[in-house]
Order: sequence, then C-alpha cells, then structure tokens
Amino acid sequence: MKQMQKQIKLAKRPVGVPTIADFDFSKAPIKAPADDELLIRAVYISVDPYLRGRMQDTKSYVAPFKLDEVITSGMIGQVVESKSDRFSKGDVIIGNLGWKEYVVASEKAVQKIDPDLAPVTAHLSIIGMTGLTAYFGLLDIGQPKEGETVVVSGAAGAVGSTVGQIAKIKGTRVVGIAGTKAKCDYLLNELGFDAAINYKEEDVPSALETACPNGIDVYYDNVGGEISDAVFPLLNKFARIPVCGSISSYNNVKPDMGPRVQSALIKTSALMQGFTLGDYSERLQEGRTALATWLNEGRLKYEETITEGFDHILDAFLDLFKGANLGKQLVKVADFEK
Amino acid sequence: MKQMQKQIKLAKRPVGVPTIADFDFSKAPIKAPADDELLIRAVYISVDPYLRGRMQDTKSYVAPFKLDEVITSGMIGQVVESKSDRFSKGDVIIGNLGWKEYVVASEKAVQKIDPDLAPVTAHLSIIGMTGLTAYFGLLDIGQPKEGETVVVSGAAGAVGSTVGQIAKIKGTRVVGIAGTKAKCDYLLNELGFDAAINYKEEDVPSALETACPNGIDVYYDNVGGEISDAVFPLLNKFARIPVCGSISSYNNVKPDMGPRVQSALIKTSALMQGFTLGDYSERLQEGRTALATWLNEGRLKYEETITEGFDHILDAFLDLFKGANLGKQLVKVADFEK
Repeated sequence: MKQMQKQIKLAKRPVGVPTIADFDFSKAPIKAPADDELLIRAVYISVDPYLRGRMQDTKSYVAPFKLDEVITSGMIGQVVESKSDRFSKGDVIIGNLGWKEYVVASEKAVQKIDPDLAPVTAHLSIIGMTGLTAYFGLLDIGQPKEGETVVVSGAAGAVGSTVGQIAKIKGTRVVGIAGTKAKCDYLLNELGFDAAINYKEEDVPSALETACPNGIDVYYDNVGGEISDAVFPLLNKFARIPVCGSISSYNNVKPDMGPRVQSALIKTSALMQGFTLGDYSERLQEGRTALATWLNEGRLKYEETITEGFDHILDAFLDLFKGANLGKQLVKVADFEK
Repeated sequence: MKQMQKQIKLAKRPVGVPTIADFDFSKAPIKAPADDELLIRAVYISVDPYLRGRMQDTKSYVAPFKLDEVITSGMIGQVVESKSDRFSKGDVIIGNLGWKEYVVASEKAVQKIDPDLAPVTAHLSIIGMTGLTAYFGLLDIGQPKEGETVVVSGAAGAVGSTVGQIAKIKGTRVVGIAGTKAKCDYLLNELGFDAAINYKEEDVPSALETACPNGIDVYYDNVGGEISDAVFPLLNKFARIPVCGSISSYNNVKPDMGPRVQSALIKTSALMQGFTLGDYSERLQEGRTALATWLNEGRLKYEETITEGFDHILDAFLDLFKGANLGKQLVKVADFEK
C-alpha cells in the first residue's frame, strides 16, 4: 500500500466558472481506520453540476464546502481494511466521500452494493442519485399522464435522459432539449424520444412550438435560463414544472434576469416546484426498485462518460459546464482488486 | 321604467394603463326578457384587477372580452321582471353580468342571495369571489401551519386582507405589504396583522428581513414584480407560494423582467402555483360556509370602497391600478326597491 496519496481541496470560492486555480492538489498520508471505520480505495468518483452550488458560501439545501477541506461527492470504492463487523476486505461500497485515493469512513457512511444486480457504476447513475432524481421529480411533481406532452431540458444528461425514458414508459409524448446534434440523434434513435431540439442551432421558442402541437403539460427543468423561458408561453392548463437544476446560472456572477413567470403561472394554474433528492430520503428504496426493474426489463438505457485518472477529476467536473458529457460523468481512479 | 339605459363597451384593447378612450359609453334600449329570462336592475357592480387581463387578446384562463361588446363582471341586482318560475320580482340576485343599468339574463346565469345571511355586498367580497379566492389559494396551495410566517402582498385589498385574517385564524405570524401608511395602520390595528410594510416608503427587502426573523413559509402573491422578487431570498425549506395576481405587470407593455426564480426554488424545495377561483368551482360551497361562519363569529372583517354612480364605474376600475381602494372596490349604480 502506498503511504502517501493524492487529494483535492477547495482552495477558494470560485467566481463565475470555476478554474483549476480554485482547487488545491496535494498529497497526504493514508490514515489508518479506527474502530467501526473502513479504509476504502476510491474506484469511481461522480462529478455533478450540483457540486458547483456547494462551492458557494450561500444558504442552500446542503451546507457549502469549507475552504481548505477535501471535496466530497458520490463514490464507489472497495474496502482495503475493515475495523467494522459489517464490512470485509474486498467489499464494494458506495457513499458520499472525499476526493482522495484512499478514504477512511465510518461504517455508517457507506453502503455495500451488490455488483451482480447491475453494473457497479449504475449505482452512481441510473439506479443511483441521478436516476432517483429523475424518478421522483418526474413522477411525484410532474405526474405525467398518458397522452400528455413532457419536455425535458438537459435531456442527454444523466438525469434528463432518464426523465425522458420514464416519461415514455408512462405513455407521454417526450421532447428533449440538448446541445449537440449527436445528443439529439441519441435521444431520437437510442432512447425513443418523439422530438429533440438542438438549442445551440435552433430557435428554441419556435422549435418548441413545432415539437409541442398540443402544448406542454410537464416541463422537467434541468437548466433554467433562456431555454426555460421559452417553455412558459406554451404551458397547458394545470401544467407541472419540477425544477431540478439551473446549470445555466450556476456560474453567473450577476443576478440571473429573465421574464417573470407569475403571469404565465396564473394564466395556466401551473405548478412549479423545486426539489432535491434529499426531499425523498424516506422513499429511496421505492425508486431504486422501480428503476432496477425497468433496467433489467430493458426499458431503460443509460450512458456514461468515464474519464480515467485521479488527475482528471477537475477536467471532468469543468467539462459539465461545457455540455461535453453524454449521460453520467464519472471518473475512474483505480481498478477493483479481486 | 326608463326605456333607454346606459352601457359600457370595450372600444379598443388598452396598451399599458387603460384610459377612458379605450371604452365606449353609449345608450341602448332596455330589452324585454324572453321565457326563462329575467330583467335585472343593476345595483352593485364589482370592478376587479383581473378584468384588465380580459381586455387583452391573449390566451388566458378566461376568454378575452370582445371588442364592441358590453363588459361583464360580478354584479348584485334586483329582479324587475321575471319570466322564470325560479325568480320573482324583487329578488336580489348575483351573477357575472354586463355593465348596463338593466340586464336581461337567463335564469341559469344568476343565483338568488339571502340578504339576511350577511350584508348583500359581502356576496361580492368577503363571502364572494374575493373571499373565496383568498380562502382556496391560502388554504389549498399555501397550507399554512401554526407558528409559520405568512407574507401577503396587496395586503389591504379585498383578497389580501382576507388572506391575512384567515392566516391569523390558522395561528401564523402574518406580514402584510401595502402601499400607504393608512393601509398599514389598518392591517396592524384593525385586522391584527403582526407586521406591515409600506412598499412605497420602505426598502422592501430589508423590511421583510426584519419582519420575518424566521424566514417565510407562505407567500400569497397578489402583485408580482419587485415586491415578489424580494420574497425569494427569504423563503424557508418547503415554502409555498400561491400566485393569485400580478397587478404590477397587468399594464406592462414590455416583457416583465426580473431575477429568475429557479435557483431559489431549488435551494428551498419551494412550490409556486398559479390559480384562479375557477379551479375550485366544485368546492365553492365549502369555502362560502367557512367564510360566512368566521364572518358571523366576528373573526373576519372586511372593508369596501363604494363609488356611487354608473358614470363612475371606469374611474373606480382605473383607481385599482393606483392602489386607491381599501378592501373591495364596488360601484353602487342604483338603490334596492322595496
């Protein structure tokens, strides 16, 4: 075992788009686990748009990262040394853990995963945080009904692509908005979306009007900004808008200005609700079971963009804001050992 | 009986703030009722901010007024001549009827009201449309819980003043936003609000922060615009925003621009829902009974601003946009006859 390891801390709070200079790469000794703790080798690290929010020192649904502390996110790892009765060396675990090559965690902070249920990385995407975020936002807030029209932005991302597929399972017309022709082709040809709009090439308001001849009943919002502005004039009576993300504004320095939504909401009696997966912490098993069932029935597909190497974690994170990833963005930092 | 009567039609669609020139005052013969119809003498005519929306030719929750047709709104009148078995001469009725001194209406278009239940004009306000709008928006969407903080804008208006009083009945801390010192004094001294903010004199963001030390759980929005913008940074987790009106924008010619709300909704998992009273058409009796009970128990107060004379209907309507009225704005156009 190596005695020293790499780690990544938040060095300063980013202003606008984060840069490498906002982070501190360093080395630190590998700690030994105490009683009821595990030493874990990081294998897959999840990078997600919401982490940008935690780098800001503002009130939000999760506490901000502290300066000069190791950043944490979803991770799949393997137990190297266990001081817990509940885990053994070699177990594959998932948890919200620090960006280090070797992490010491309490036995309460991680869960064992069954590598036979689905490919392990699926636990960080389609049957993990992003799949569950799609599931609860769409079904609990969006409540799509057969024959309705569902629009999803960030449609080729890990959340959006799952939203669209669940909406298809529910018998709706699904329109995805994404940022490249390749992504739009993927939505149409691989995932069975009914229409796809390339927001970088098309005029979104008129493209939406064409793609939604019967108006919009559900808008699953991953992006905010001008793309979302274009949805409001097309809402049907009693439309529902789960507001999941606002990636277009995460790096804004100035206030994010746009047309106020109140009049559109009154005209249509529409509902708009923000949420995070934490709101559904009591119901995760329900969602995981449904997603795993659909996955094993072949009704859900998912893509991953896997970047290799601990040194490329930040590249992978920063690429999220350029729309480079198709599906879930992960970083593979080690191999599993037999 | 007079043979000719006054009436008011929409002459053209207002651009910005409506003016007298947008309307057509004329005279027309009084019609005779056909079978199952009534001839009604207008007594009280309701003027309401939402009528501005109907003067616009845009998709909304009710069809726009047609040009060169008589404008309609809530009216209390008295039956002058009945060709219906269900109504007799002298009955006091309520309905959505034209701005004429004498209206012919189907027996299906009006309801008899019991003048002994409450003062007749209460049927156009506290136990009528505005009271019911307050009731359903606050209780069905806002769902205030004891000890929470409820903020209401347009607080001295017919809807807002009822919202605040129902919120007090439900055991919440109530903060009203209104536009004059007299209105604020009325909220504090007559209606028992816990705090009142004069948006024309005070800095609303900082005044709200002072008035809401525990944040905001429910924001009943009657106005939209900058006043509503100031609420979003103070929302608590799982806050609810019934969006009832947006009077600040009704006369806007340019798009109504402001800070986008998506990030604030995500941070707090807040819900924002537009609605109109029509959404609750199946439940009106429930609301009317509750409101009448509270009224008769002395737990609800209401104010009216009554303008006299058919010729002043438009003055009364236009004054709404200047914030001149306290409570429900009505126009008395005739006396009841014994």
